[in-house]
Amino acid sequence: MNIAYFNGKFLEKEEIKISPDDRGFLFADGIYEVVKWYEGFFFDLENHMVRLKRSLNEIRINWSDAETFPEFAVELIKRNQLADKRALVYLQVTRGVSPRTHSFPEPAVKPTVYAFAKEFLKSGKETESGVRVMLKKDIRWGRCDIKSIALLPNTLSFQEAHEKGFNECIFVRNGLITEGSRSNIFFVLNEELYTHPESECILSGITRKNIIRIAREAGISIKEEPIPENSLGIVNESFITNTSAEISPVIAFNDIMIADGKPGPVTMFIHNIFQNELVALKG
Amino acid sequence: MNIAYFNGKFLEKEEIKISPDDRGFLFADGIYEVVKWYEGFFFDLENHMVRLKRSLNEIRINWSDAETFPEFAVELIKRNQLADKRALVYLQVTRGVSPRTHSFPEPAVKPTVYAFAKEFLKSGKETESGVRVMLKKDIRWGRCDIKSIALLPNTLSFQEAHEKGFNECIFVRNGLITEGSRSNIFFVLNEELYTHPESECILSGITRKNIIRIAREAGISIKEEPIPENSLGIVNESFITNTSAEISPVIAFNDIMIADGKPGPVTMFIHNIFQNELVALKG
Repeated sequence: MNIAYFNGKFLEKEEIKISPDDRGFLFADGIYEVVKWYEGFFFDLENHMVRLKRSLNEIRINWSDAETFPEFAVELIKRNQLADKRALVYLQVTRGVSPRTHSFPEPAVKPTVYAFAKEFLKSGKETESGVRVMLKKDIRWGRCDIKSIALLPNTLSFQEAHEKGFNECIFVRNGLITEGSRSNIFFVLNEELYTHPESECILSGITRKNIIRIAREAGISIKEEPIPENSLGIVNESFITNTSAEISPVIAFNDIMIADGKPGPVTMFIHNIFQNELVALKG
Repeated sequence: MNIAYFNGKFLEKEEIKISPDDRGFLFADGIYEVVKWYEGFFFDLENHMVRLKRSLNEIRINWSDAETFPEFAVELIKRNQLADKRALVYLQVTRGVSPRTHSFPEPAVKPTVYAFAKEFLKSGKETESGVRVMLKKDIRWGRCDIKSIALLPNTLSFQEAHEKGFNECIFVRNGLITEGSRSNIFFVLNEELYTHPESECILSGITRKNIIRIAREAGISIKEEPIPENSLGIVNESFITNTSAEISPVIAFNDIMIADGKPGPVTMFIHNIFQNELVALKG
């Protein structure tokens, strides 16, 4: 059983037919969002909704029913019997179906709305032992703040990391570390927490936002400043964050080991607060 | 009637069902090619085939039947009763269908191959009176040499130009003019022909290649060097090229008029040779 959502209907995924004229297929003309279900609730759905609307607005897709997402996301969880599990709901909205031409359809067409749910299985191994990441020149476009489906550079970069035995590809733009192919990145240096500021060079992650809040509440000094690639040798700790895997300690960049190659104390401190918040939210 | 090609079959376009798991739809993980039919032949199909294979190779899609493209492209022309007309055949190849994850499918899946033909109608007005173009910061990724379907920046930029009354958006990267959202660009300065060199900043256009050949054969000095944005005031002529529209004289960039605002003599000289070659090819 695999029930997905498509333009207002719940269908077996195999029944869903994307038109070859869909601008998502022809032009990557769409955006997406991923929310995480914790045995009964979506974590910080409010901020995901804010980001969803911002992405739509930035590329000028008018999806007037965006407010229905929380409702059909829960319905997808229920119909796929995931209510008591951890799961992800993926949402994609494209500009819609129209014969191929670079300009937007005139008159505008209805956007294509597609969503599916799947169980999230995490070993926990990555939190215990940490992950190794690869560094690579950031070849992505100039509007990484938009959660667009134009993900070819991300998949190519992630695949390269994967084949070389790394867990993520971390991008470097003009000598500065921006973020990963599917994660934000944090550093601990001299007891301060660093992460790249919001800009057109990074996607403003929801987990990133929550980590910054948690650190601030815990009295940890936050610097929203990028770390230069050539400062990695003096960094005390590092971790990557995203909605699905939450917090993963980074123990090495290429062959540069971070400190003693084990998840650091600030990382684990923040990780534990995050886990406690999830327990509290579960009530 | 609208017969398209999909994974080895000729189908009514409306019958074609793209899976929501297609990596073209989820990740823009694919490439495309456009060839032009001139009442009986495709122009420079050889170079289009070279570029097609290069694009596939660069993003590591293994389409073992790439050599069948010329055959089914002609078949599309015939089945859509376009044999005695001018037409375009659009081909798109994606990495195939696989549940969503950033890494490539393991084991590899068959690529998705989709193509359609449509009549090309050109007024000729643009050649006579020239076009006006907009300048914009190049926000595209770092591998513009790959003809990928990750075209969101191109559509957003073209749409902006279109709404402001321009015929194309021309990109500027680090102060240098690269190319258009769907064209290459040439300049005439002091009786020499300039165009951005092949690099990761431009797509190597087939029309661009032929213009360079024609100019060289005609004894025009060619400089494959970019023109800085701040040199536009001293440029004598400019034109944009692509497979569908061939050569379009540019008479203004934003509000900067080029020379007297009319298509220039070198532009029209090259245009006429190109037209004569087409007549000769028709035999």
